[in-house]
Amino acid sequence: MLLVKIGGGESINLAGIANDLADVDDSVCIVHGANALRDDLARRLDVEKQVLTSVSGYTSVYTDEQLMDVMLMAYSGLRNKRLVELLQRNGVNAVGLTGLDGALVRGARNKGIRVRQGGKTLIKRDLSGKPVTVNRRLLRLLLDGGFTPVVTVPVIDENNFAINSENDDVVAVLNTVLKADVVVQLIEAPGILEDHNDPGSLIRRIPRGQLADREKRVNGRMKRKLLALRRLTERSSTKVVVADGRRERPLTDALAGKGTVIL
Amino acid sequence: MLLVKIGGGESINLAGIANDLADVDDSVCIVHGANALRDDLARRLDVEKQVLTSVSGYTSVYTDEQLMDVMLMAYSGLRNKRLVELLQRNGVNAVGLTGLDGALVRGARNKGIRVRQGGKTLIKRDLSGKPVTVNRRLLRLLLDGGFTPVVTVPVIDENNFAINSENDDVVAVLNTVLKADVVVQLIEAPGILEDHNDPGSLIRRIPRGQLADREKRVNGRMKRKLLALRRLTERSSTKVVVADGRRERPLTDALAGKGTVIL
Repeated sequence: MLLVKIGGGESINLAGIANDLADVDDSVCIVHGANALRDDLARRLDVEKQVLTSVSGYTSVYTDEQLMDVMLMAYSGLRNKRLVELLQRNGVNAVGLTGLDGALVRGARNKGIRVRQGGKTLIKRDLSGKPVTVNRRLLRLLLDGGFTPVVTVPVIDENNFAINSENDDVVAVLNTVLKADVVVQLIEAPGILEDHNDPGSLIRRIPRGQLADREKRVNGRMKRKLLALRRLTERSSTKVVVADGRRERPLTDALAGKGTVIL
Repeated sequence: MLLVKIGGGESINLAGIANDLADVDDSVCIVHGANALRDDLARRLDVEKQVLTSVSGYTSVYTDEQLMDVMLMAYSGLRNKRLVELLQRNGVNAVGLTGLDGALVRGARNKGIRVRQGGKTLIKRDLSGKPVTVNRRLLRLLLDGGFTPVVTVPVIDENNFAINSENDDVVAVLNTVLKADVVVQLIEAPGILEDHNDPGSLIRRIPRGQLADREKRVNGRMKRKLLALRRLTERSSTKVVVADGRRERPLTDALAGKGTVIL
């Protein structure tokens, strides 16, 4: 079992990934982002995107009903279906799903994010939360039927409302059921970097025990990613490769160990 | 087996339909449109929508890559997922799919539409076509698993490209596999009208043998709808009810025979 997370950056080589996937014999499950598409669409529709930074230093997008509509269009509409189309053209029998479909990924809505604003600590509550469980039956039905699930946000909360989640966390919760041999994360960098401004500072290997320590030393998106990697590796013996999604053969290279290998 | 087509007009009572569906004991498959959402989104994104009228009098939307992106966002993204969310909130375990997913609905791309332009007959070719076959295995997998498929365009062509199709034609091809007892079509009118300007001119019953004759006497969208109804009833003994999707209990009323019944 192979679980592939495709980042939502604009320079990810989707055609190359789809081409690589055609050569994979194993069962595959895909999770993808679409943040560049979402930001572009929000701009074109004149919808404001707010980014919150919690008091503990994690950043997240503030998701109201309007931004949820934009997300549904960008993630579940445009990116998910164009990726399914591309995979079908490469002979991969892809089925695109969000966490809402068949309640595939059930989450717990956030009670609120503690943020500092104008010298005060406020609680901001939005349509976001953490994925908690997976509809194992639906996932198995599709995989055993020879289909390749292509999953993206939103997920569904306790009251059956759509909520935004980190796709990295969706990967972690899917893997509690899939128990993949390898999880590949394709991003817009050569892997995890010692210095995020220096592409030459690739870390080739991180023992899983060192993830918590690294998490403390970084900020912004990378802090979130390391947290998600820690959750992913805490719950399984899965090997994780964080690799460059912009290369000619992103997945083939990642499976050959090019990138950051977490063991 | 119940097959419900939900029109894409803006005054369709989706909450009422979802509420009605919660009371249906039978297996259900849903097909929906989103034309009002698509038109609104195209306007907001400044994407031009061209409507072609063929020499034989049928109208259709000219679909290029840009309009396909808009369609994917409106139909497969916003409407499909918001409907799945609404159904989940009503206890219906909905799974949203396009014809691309698992190649659920395979179509044949149009060779071109013959149109009159500036006194000449031109052939215009776009990303559109007719649905031809259904992935019966995927459809049965979901229905037998207790899920309610919620299907919309695009469909997938012979070369695995996304193409636009009439959702009414998608209903007809799905029904070759589903062989529903009843097909309900929920539209923004009391049913099929003798005079489309007079809501009081509802036709309560149309024997299926009279559809072809009526089709010759009307124009525009209704001509398309009657053609699709003819295809639907030609291939099965299914009872069809065309009914008002704007009522408080649209589906319950339709199943009670309020609307136009085609037998």
